[in-house]
Amino acid sequence: MEQSFIGLMTDFGEDDFFVASLRGVIANINPSAHIVDITHRVSPFDIAAASFILRSCYKYFPAGTIFLIIVDPTVGSSRRILLAETKRYFFIAPDNGVLSLVLEEENRIRLRELKNKKYFLPELSRTFEGRDKMAPVAAWLSKGVSSNEFGPLTSEYKRFHVQRPELEEGEIVGRVLYADRFGNLITNIPESMLKLLQNETGLESFVLNVGGKEIFAFGECYSGVERGMLLFLVGSLGLIEIAARESSASRKLKVLSGDEVRIVAVERPGTSESKQKRQKRFSRKKIRFYVFI
Amino acid sequence: MEQSFIGLMTDFGEDDFFVASLRGVIANINPSAHIVDITHRVSPFDIAAASFILRSCYKYFPAGTIFLIIVDPTVGSSRRILLAETKRYFFIAPDNGVLSLVLEEENRIRLRELKNKKYFLPELSRTFEGRDKMAPVAAWLSKGVSSNEFGPLTSEYKRFHVQRPELEEGEIVGRVLYADRFGNLITNIPESMLKLLQNETGLESFVLNVGGKEIFAFGECYSGVERGMLLFLVGSLGLIEIAARESSASRKLKVLSGDEVRIVAVERPGTSESKQKRQKRFSRKKIRFYVFI
Amino acid sequence: MEQSFIGLMTDFGEDDFFVASLRGVIANINPSAHIVDITHRVSPFDIAAASFILRSCYKYFPAGTIFLIIVDPTVGSSRRILLAETKRYFFIAPDNGVLSLVLEEENRIRLRELKNKKYFLPELSRTFEGRDKMAPVAAWLSKGVSSNEFGPLTSEYKRFHVQRPELEEGEIVGRVLYADRFGNLITNIPESMLKLLQNETGLESFVLNVGGKEIFAFGECYSGVERGMLLFLVGSLGLIEIAARESSASRKLKVLSGDEVRIVAVERPGTSESKQKRQKRFSRKKIRFYVFI
Repeated sequence: MEQSFIGLMTDFGEDDFFVASLRGVIANINPSAHIVDITHRVSPFDIAAASFILRSCYKYFPAGTIFLIIVDPTVGSSRRILLAETKRYFFIAPDNGVLSLVLEEENRIRLRELKNKKYFLPELSRTFEGRDKMAPVAAWLSKGVSSNEFGPLTSEYKRFHVQRPELEEGEIVGRVLYADRFGNLITNIPESMLKLLQNETGLESFVLNVGGKEIFAFGECYSGVERGMLLFLVGSLGLIEIAARESSASRKLKVLSGDEVRIVAVERPGTSESKQKRQKRFSRKKIRFYVFI
Repeated sequence: MEQSFIGLMTDFGEDDFFVASLRGVIANINPSAHIVDITHRVSPFDIAAASFILRSCYKYFPAGTIFLIIVDPTVGSSRRILLAETKRYFFIAPDNGVLSLVLEEENRIRLRELKNKKYFLPELSRTFEGRDKMAPVAAWLSKGVSSNEFGPLTSEYKRFHVQRPELEEGEIVGRVLYADRFGNLITNIPESMLKLLQNETGLESFVLNVGGKEIFAFGECYSGVERGMLLFLVGSLGLIEIAARESSASRKLKVLSGDEVRIVAVERPGTSESKQKRQKRFSRKKIRFYVFI
Repeated sequence: MEQSFIGLMTDFGEDDFFVASLRGVIANINPSAHIVDITHRVSPFDIAAASFILRSCYKYFPAGTIFLIIVDPTVGSSRRILLAETKRYFFIAPDNGVLSLVLEEENRIRLRELKNKKYFLPELSRTFEGRDKMAPVAAWLSKGVSSNEFGPLTSEYKRFHVQRPELEEGEIVGRVLYADRFGNLITNIPESMLKLLQNETGLESFVLNVGGKEIFAFGECYSGVERGMLLFLVGSLGLIEIAARESSASRKLKVLSGDEVRIVAVERPGTSESKQKRQKRFSRKKIRFYVFI
């Protein structure tokens, strides 16, 4: 497994000397490393967003890529720094939950605690362990140093509770996970769940409820409706997304990450949930549908 | 023609997982490709601005550079994806007009429609064809796959109407094309047109009218006037620019892309157009001056 | 000394075609150059901030790195362009003070004025000398052209006055140098000065005064206090920083670069300066403490 790509994600922004310091440290240790920026614009301290962004792109990277994830509100405290090794990738991150979504998708994870000072910078600060510990380790790892070298195996790591959508009484109840730059609202509802809903209800069409509004248009692409109109569709991650054509669904709906989303099946496209509700003859049994967002 | 540089421009911003996904896909197919970011901060869906940015920098890149332009409001619709090949460069972009300004500057363009699924990702989404189709094709192309492979030749492509400045009755009438990060207003008026105006009128000096204001200072560089003062000058693209020293002309003038700009020749620097107008003895014939912005 | 890394810092932002033009010019001259972005988000024309950012990260880069610093409000005027060569690095920048902080940290500097048109682009604009002169020179230098080639030696360069903290009557008086993306306020007071203050006063604890407020919490890391609380600590540059846990000290305190910061020694942590002041028995001699920020 070649190890020369380093995928870099931080909440440092790009205004200061922080990211440049990381790049310098890595280049100094391994001039052949290919640094690939994931993003440096995670909202400060937003571990959940960072976890979602990583989960949404890491599989596209070459085998051997080392992901260096520095979103670290408790930097310098006793929180540990982890090196996680999966079949294809390495992840270096503080043990604060930021790897939750990625590690739920992987099996056979080898976890280590980064401890070996030999691979840290000689002078250590308490407030920039990304520069002083994590970046040098990523660089040495990319240079071929064996992962055993960096610290002892460990089995525990912090993870946050992953909200899963539910299918219940002919209704999917999910959540908004992420609002992207365009204002598209990505939910935790996978495409496959719509098919389950169709099977259960025998109905073909859907209405989506979010932020007190009903959305009737279920499209195949963003431009399937008039400019500015709301629609929902299967997004590029295979998850249901709420969008407004060439506009921001997030702003239009005043909806944010964590807000509830409900999808019901209806007889004809464009009919309202309320009318349909009365005719519902759905089983009362509650189906839990486990998806890693 | 070596083909290892991939110039990447999108309107994805840098907050999300979109650009990272593109970088991952390319690195996975061709680890030796050099990805060079042009910008990812085109205003969402602003095809005209994207076209202008590309036109303003592409000629500085090495021969063989593959430009991957993903500003794509109608992603997933029936709009085609194009591969344009010129003498020195390749351009991959949706067929939505974003290549208008570049292709007007080039002759001998070979156009293809990207169709060969062999070079797409195995799983295709409807909302992220940049990741699933365009990035992989760029990567394979950079690896040396012949452009014939990607799809059939085509001759038509969407282009938008290019506004050209006019020289008419001793007056240049043009438009603001672009406001840059500093608030400088770049017009579609080339330096050469000022010389035509001088020849026609026999007058040496100029006054520029924009947003209901007259600007008298015609400088050689931004610092040619007092701090905050408005001036106009020949910018780095050879086009007339309106600027305010260490300040924003766009904000001062409340002028945006598309707004009209007029330049008249006057006898002495600093004199007003209105005084001069009465003395005009200009021919009435209308000269159309074709410049690609 | 290998010379293939080019560290790029500008105030161009990332929205326009400016940075892309630089990257293209460099890639065209030396396709093997490794361009490493420092930042392009320096506030327009903010020479002091640019100088501070550069000073805060340059030492982490590999020997031979060429730093190309384009923050250039007087571009196109008669201001010179400099090439500074130190034991480990090269710096190319306009002669406007932007190298002040770096060059104060270095000895044995060889300075040249960039003059040799052979290494400029054939067509020169007056408003984008970064693209037309500085980037090509960086690229040729990275390709191995000797620095003698680019222009004659010079000894003078513009530098700005560097504010130094003072230790006086049991009190450190310093300044805020920089507010980072998190709102942390980085001062010009080095850790070592706290020790001097302890020695002089025999007192162990400190209180920091800034913006009319007293801060009592002196921590080891940002998470050493409750969320939102103000503290001060030794930051990653070895300088005293004022922070608010997972919040912005800059916003909370309404304090900016240049504002005064005072630190006094007190008997017990958490006691106020005013109570202590009366008991002061400090020597009246004024100690000047020279630190390059």
